[in-house]
Amino acid sequence: MRVIKEHTIKKLQQRGVFIEDMAPLVMQLQRPYIPGLTLQECLESILAVLNKRDFQHTILTGIAIDELAEKNLIEEPLLSVLKNDDGLYGVDEILALGAGTLYGTIGSTNFGFLDKTKPGIIGKLDTSHERINIFLDDLVCAIIAAAASRVAHKNQNLRSKIE
Amino acid sequence: MRVIKEHTIKKLQQRGVFIEDMAPLVMQLQRPYIPGLTLQECLESILAVLNKRDFQHTILTGIAIDELAEKNLIEEPLLSVLKNDDGLYGVDEILALGAGTLYGTIGSTNFGFLDKTKPGIIGKLDTSHERINIFLDDLVCAIIAAAASRVAHKNQNLRSKIE
Amino acid sequence: MRVIKEHTIKKLQQRGVFIEDMAPLVMQLQRPYIPGLTLQECLESILAVLNKRDFQHTILTGIAIDELAEKNLIEEPLLSVLKNDDGLYGVDEILALGAGTLYGTIGSTNFGFLDKTKPGIIGKLDTSHERINIFLDDLVCAIIAAAASRVAHKNQNLRSKIE
Amino acid sequence: MRVIKEHTIKKLQQRGVFIEDMAPLVMQLQRPYIPGLTLQECLESILAVLNKRDFQHTILTGIAIDELAEKNLIEEPLLSVLKNDDGLYGVDEILALGAGTLYGTIGSTNFGFLDKTKPGIIGKLDTSHERINIFLDDLVCAIIAAAASRVAHKNQNLRSKIE
Ligand SMILES: [Ca+2]
Ligand SMILES: [Ca+2]
Ligand SMILES: [Ca+2]
Ligand SMILES: [Ca+2]
Repeated sequence: MRVIKEHTIKKLQQRGVFIEDMAPLVMQLQRPYIPGLTLQECLESILAVLNKRDFQHTILTGIAIDELAEKNLIEEPLLSVLKNDDGLYGVDEILALGAGTLYGTIGSTNFGFLDKTKPGIIGKLDTSHERINIFLDDLVCAIIAAAASRVAHKNQNLRSKIE
Repeated sequence: MRVIKEHTIKKLQQRGVFIEDMAPLVMQLQRPYIPGLTLQECLESILAVLNKRDFQHTILTGIAIDELAEKNLIEEPLLSVLKNDDGLYGVDEILALGAGTLYGTIGSTNFGFLDKTKPGIIGKLDTSHERINIFLDDLVCAIIAAAASRVAHKNQNLRSKIE
Repeated sequence: MRVIKEHTIKKLQQRGVFIEDMAPLVMQLQRPYIPGLTLQECLESILAVLNKRDFQHTILTGIAIDELAEKNLIEEPLLSVLKNDDGLYGVDEILALGAGTLYGTIGSTNFGFLDKTKPGIIGKLDTSHERINIFLDDLVCAIIAAAASRVAHKNQNLRSKIE
Repeated sequence: MRVIKEHTIKKLQQRGVFIEDMAPLVMQLQRPYIPGLTLQECLESILAVLNKRDFQHTILTGIAIDELAEKNLIEEPLLSVLKNDDGLYGVDEILALGAGTLYGTIGSTNFGFLDKTKPGIIGKLDTSHERINIFLDDLVCAIIAAAASRVAHKNQNLRSKIE
């Protein structure tokens, strides 16, 4: 499994997504609720999310479709639907949301918010003209949303123990 | 079924939610993509969503819990969790998202966006001090998100027929 | 959209799945609750499900992955995960369930039941040795589950009008 | 949080559901894949599931609705929908599935299978005439499905380490 995790991180990097670009967005989502939150904790939370087999499989599958579409190896009419990023193609969201809910339900709210407002690295993926990132943008939203949920749950548990 | 639909609309009104307050938010979400969209179409889309049995049941169940919590008829420790609107209580989102995805996947993105940014009527529900609206705010997000998805799908179908 | 619908039906046939093989399973699920149900209604319900854009996109995407894996066009290590039909690869289920819930929640129960008991055409797909049907079996479960839900909802509406 | 966990287990017992009755069903689902699986591991897996906050909240909320319906404290027309266990009321499944998917996607297949075949304790809940168990039966399916998924994931991880 460690092999697949490392491969997942490598594929994300090949597609222009670095953990260092995702961590600030986790921070931005959770800082208002957890004042002392550090960037290091956000980085660790992303790594913990990428440790989940379901996430690894989902990310590798989504990126595979993006890359195969780029190489025109997907049959028509699906290829055109993907290449035109048809606003009503929702398979990318289904896939990403399915993985994103693994850390509980706050995940889905943050996922929707990121997907709509497209801050930082997410916006860059969306407007990339050389590449097809149909699935990748939603996958990155899901990783960040899940990492944010994990930070929230962990922090609440800590507080419960202190009180 | 018509009886339950009318009752659902009446309960929403009793809790301060009018279709006229939701329609502008559907408009706001879809206007950028559908220039000629009218408020009347948004109103009709909300009514079509409220015609779905799953939505009626979900809305009535969610509002029932809110009202029973208000009357202290829910047992402890759940009552305190609900009354303090514990940020990690996610049952309201699960319920609302379950219904909200009935019009396809764009629903979940808009749901998350509305739930996070809380525009218009949604924000008012969230800050209401006299009432417990644990479920209601998410239900309203779901109705609006589903109505927006319906408008998007319908419009795309129309365009496909014209082209 | 009609073009995509016809293409979806053609792709299903190329992969060995005919509407005539799915209709009896819809019948089997709903007959206990709707005594007068005909095979014709089950066929029509499947066609109505295949009319949904989300279903068309999901089916075409899932079959594309199956075919690309068959042709060894998916990169390692994902290819091996797919070829070994790793019991913990769950992306096929996420995708199929996402589409399958479009006709309401009864869909997910029937989906799980079909996926586990594998009656008729579903069992044949699962044991096919020449072909890779990672996604296809779950897609067929989702089509049947959604068609069954549609039959149930429609019938209940009819009864409400008569009573 | 430990207080809420203990209260959740107590409420389940008050409604006739004991961990000892759920463990054999986890066993039955996973034994075919994991020959050496013990009942003790199944028990521990259920306890780990009940340790999740989302599960605790979902269980307490679902049981609260069942109990309030029993005491006629839910308003009409929802009360009649609940009391007649209307086959198209799907809120119980939405709620249970939402929690049940927390251990990944195998959860939803097992959930559907249990919900349809109703083995052991699940069947007893469904035919109980003195009590209203609209939500409880689905909650128990979700607990068992999630515990089975957890056992499967854990075992696979162990094997990966050995190989
Ligand atoms: Ca996308
Ligand atoms: Ca809420
Ligand atoms: Ca499969
Ligand atoms: Ca039930």
